[in-house]
Amino acid sequence: MAAEIVNPRKDAGTDADAESDEGAPEAFDPAFALHRGGKLAVRSTVPVRDKDDLSLAYTPGVAKVCSAIAERPELVHDYTWKSQVVAVVTDGTAVLGLGDIGPEASLPVMEGKAILFKQFGGVDAVPLALATTDADEIVETVVRLSPSFGGVNLEDIAAPRCFEIEHKLQERLDIPVFHDDQHGTAVVTLAALRNALRLTGRTLGELRAVISGAGAAGVAIAKMLLEAGIGDVTVADRKGVVSKDRDGLTPVKQELAEITNKAGLSGSLESALAGADVFIGVSGGTVPEPAIASMAKDSFVFAMANPNPEVHPDIAHRYAAVVATGRSDYPNQINNVLAFPGIFAGALQVRASRITETMKIAAAEALAGVVGDDLTADYVIPSPFDERVAPAVTAAVAAAARAEGVARR
Amino acid sequence: MAAEIVNPRKDAGTDADAESDEGAPEAFDPAFALHRGGKLAVRSTVPVRDKDDLSLAYTPGVAKVCSAIAERPELVHDYTWKSQVVAVVTDGTAVLGLGDIGPEASLPVMEGKAILFKQFGGVDAVPLALATTDADEIVETVVRLSPSFGGVNLEDIAAPRCFEIEHKLQERLDIPVFHDDQHGTAVVTLAALRNALRLTGRTLGELRAVISGAGAAGVAIAKMLLEAGIGDVTVADRKGVVSKDRDGLTPVKQELAEITNKAGLSGSLESALAGADVFIGVSGGTVPEPAIASMAKDSFVFAMANPNPEVHPDIAHRYAAVVATGRSDYPNQINNVLAFPGIFAGALQVRASRITETMKIAAAEALAGVVGDDLTADYVIPSPFDERVAPAVTAAVAAAARAEGVARR
Repeated sequence: MAAEIVNPRKDAGTDADAESDEGAPEAFDPAFALHRGGKLAVRSTVPVRDKDDLSLAYTPGVAKVCSAIAERPELVHDYTWKSQVVAVVTDGTAVLGLGDIGPEASLPVMEGKAILFKQFGGVDAVPLALATTDADEIVETVVRLSPSFGGVNLEDIAAPRCFEIEHKLQERLDIPVFHDDQHGTAVVTLAALRNALRLTGRTLGELRAVISGAGAAGVAIAKMLLEAGIGDVTVADRKGVVSKDRDGLTPVKQELAEITNKAGLSGSLESALAGADVFIGVSGGTVPEPAIASMAKDSFVFAMANPNPEVHPDIAHRYAAVVATGRSDYPNQINNVLAFPGIFAGALQVRASRITETMKIAAAEALAGVVGDDLTADYVIPSPFDERVAPAVTAAVAAAARAEGVARR
Repeated sequence: MAAEIVNPRKDAGTDADAESDEGAPEAFDPAFALHRGGKLAVRSTVPVRDKDDLSLAYTPGVAKVCSAIAERPELVHDYTWKSQVVAVVTDGTAVLGLGDIGPEASLPVMEGKAILFKQFGGVDAVPLALATTDADEIVETVVRLSPSFGGVNLEDIAAPRCFEIEHKLQERLDIPVFHDDQHGTAVVTLAALRNALRLTGRTLGELRAVISGAGAAGVAIAKMLLEAGIGDVTVADRKGVVSKDRDGLTPVKQELAEITNKAGLSGSLESALAGADVFIGVSGGTVPEPAIASMAKDSFVFAMANPNPEVHPDIAHRYAAVVATGRSDYPNQINNVLAFPGIFAGALQVRASRITETMKIAAAEALAGVVGDDLTADYVIPSPFDERVAPAVTAAVAAAARAEGVARR
C-alpha cells in the first residue's frame, strides 16, 4: 500500500523564493517546506500516450460508457471512480484545537485527511472546504455534489451543527455519511475499552464511565458506549454534569441527559469521578490528581486531549490500570486513523448506503481483535502503522453491512 | 510529463465478475474494460511512512500551517494544492453529442477531462457532476466550493444557461472561470484560422465567416473572431441566419444579432455561404456540397461536428484551400485539448483572477505559432500530442495575464 512519493512542486520552494517572501518565518520551518504546493495530486489510472488511448478514455470511446450509465444508473459504480472516492467536507469551524479558522485555513488538515484515507485505506479522497457555515446550505451543497462521490466524510464542523448536518444528509443520500470527529473517535475508544476490559477480566455492563466534553466526540462516545451495553455513562461539559435537572440545555444535551447518567449525578466533573471506573477526556480541560485518585480500583483513564491530555499519563498511571492518550509519544494512542480508512473502505467495497451502529461496533471489535494475545496495559490498541488494522476493519465493516442489509453488492 | 500507469482496480474486472453481471454486453468491450473502477486516483505528494512523517503532514505539524493561512489568507496558494487544482463542473445536460444524460452518466467524460488536464497541462482536476440543473443553484454551489480550488472549468452545460452561469460565477469569484465548450473551441478555431490566413497571405479583416450553430461554441467563436478583428461573421441556427429582423430570439441570440451579420443577411445557412470566406461548423447539421461550392475562392472549411462533420472533408477539399475537422483521423483536428490545459496552467501559474479575452487570444496565437515554418494546408494546427503546445500556451497566457494586470504574482 506504500505510495510512490514524487512532488516536483516542492522544488518551487527555493531559497530565492523564500527570501523574496520578505523573510517570512515559515520559509525555514520543515512543516512549511513539506506543505509547499500542497500534499495531494490527481493521477490517471489509464494510459494517455497516443490517439488510440484517447479514443478509448475520451471521445469517441467514452460515449458508450456514458450511454450505458444513462440507461442503467447503477453502472456508475462500475465504470467511474465514484465508489472509490470520498468527499472530505468541512466548513472550517472546528479545526484541530484551532477552532473557527475558516475554509481556506482548514485545507492543510483536509489534505492530510485525504492522504491518510489513501495511505491507510486505499480510498481516494477530495478535500472540499466550503465557504458557508449555514447548516442547510452545507446540506444542499453536499446533496448536489453527491453524484460524484461514493461517501461523505464530515470533518471539523462545530457542534451542534455537525449533528444536524450529518442527520439531514444521511436522510437524503444513499451513500455513507460519517462525521469522523464523532464516530471515528467513538469507535477507537470502544476498541481500547474492550481490550482494557479483557485485560482486567471485567464486562462492559459493570462499568460506569465519565466523559469530559459534550461536543461532537463526547456525544458520539456516550451513545456508542450505551449502544455497546455499558452500565452507566455520565457526560460533563464546562458547566458540570449534564443532567435532566439542569436548565438551559441545548436540544442535543437534553437528549444526552435523557439517555445518560442513570446514577442521577449532578455537580462537577470531579465529583462525578468519585468511584467511576472509566474517565474519557475529549474536552481539552484539565482534571486534578485527587479526582483521578478518587476513581474505583483498576480504573481506565483515556485522556485524549491534544497536545495536552486532561491528566498527565504519568500521574494517571499512579491510580489507573490502563492509561491511553491522543498522543503518539505515549503508549495506547487513541487515533482516528485506526478507524475511518477501514470503515470507508469496507462500506465502499460493498456499496453500503450508510454506516450503521452495527458496522461501527464491528469496526471497534475488529480493531480490538488485532491486539490479540499481545495484550498488555500498554498495548490495548494497535499502532496506526500496524498493517493488519485496515484490512481487519474493512472486512468486519463489509460483513456487518451485508448482515444488516445495507450493502448493495 | 508521462504519468505512471498503475490501476489495481482493473483487476476487479475479472471474467467471474463479468459473468456474474448477467452477460452484460459491455463486459467484453475494451472501452468498458478500460473504464472499470474509473480513470482517476488521488495520491499523496509527501511521505507518510512513520510517526515523524505524520507529525509533519498531519497533527501536530499541520496546525502551524493552518494558523499561518488563517492570519495571511493568500498563503493558501503556497501551502495547499488550491493553486494546482481545477474543479471540472457539469450538470450533465449537454454531454458530447448525447445531450442531457444526467450527472452520473456524465462522469466518464469529466474523468476524461481531468486526465487530459493532468497529462497535457500538469494541472490536477476533480470532476464534480452536480445533481441540479438550476443556474442559480449551480452558481451558489460553485461559489461555496471555491475556497478549495484554483479555477473552475465548466463543462457540458447546455446553452443558454452556460452563459449565465459563467458570467455570474466570474462576477463573484476571484479565480478563473472558463467554459471550455465555448472558449476552448474558440481559441483553437482562431489559431487554425490564423495559420490558414498566413498560408494564403490574407488578413482577418478581409474575411467574412459563417458559423453554423448558435450554442455555446458558436456564440463564443463569433465573439472571439470579432474581438480578434474579423471583417464580418454571420451565425446560423436551425432556423437560419441570426439577424435583427428575426422574431423570437433569445436574449443571447438578440445580442448576437447586434454584434454579428454586418452584411445584413437573412434566410438560410446555405444562402449565407454564397461568397463567404470561412465556414465554421459547430452544429451537428449537414451542409450540401453546392453551398460549399458557392463560397469564395480559397475558402476555409472547418467542419467540426463529431463524429460526422457537417461536410465530408473529401468533398470540402474540392473547393476549400484549408479543411479542418474535429476528428483525429483527418488532418487539422480542432481539438480543445490543445487549449484548456495550457490556458489553466498559465492562469494558475500567475494566480490570475480571471481568464480575459486578451489571454485567450494570446493562447490562440501561441498555439498557431507552434506550427511555425512547417505550415501547409494539411498542417494549420499542431497535434494534441505535440509536446511544445502546452508550454507555449502556458507561457503566453501567463505573460498576457501579467500584462493585463489580472496576475497576482
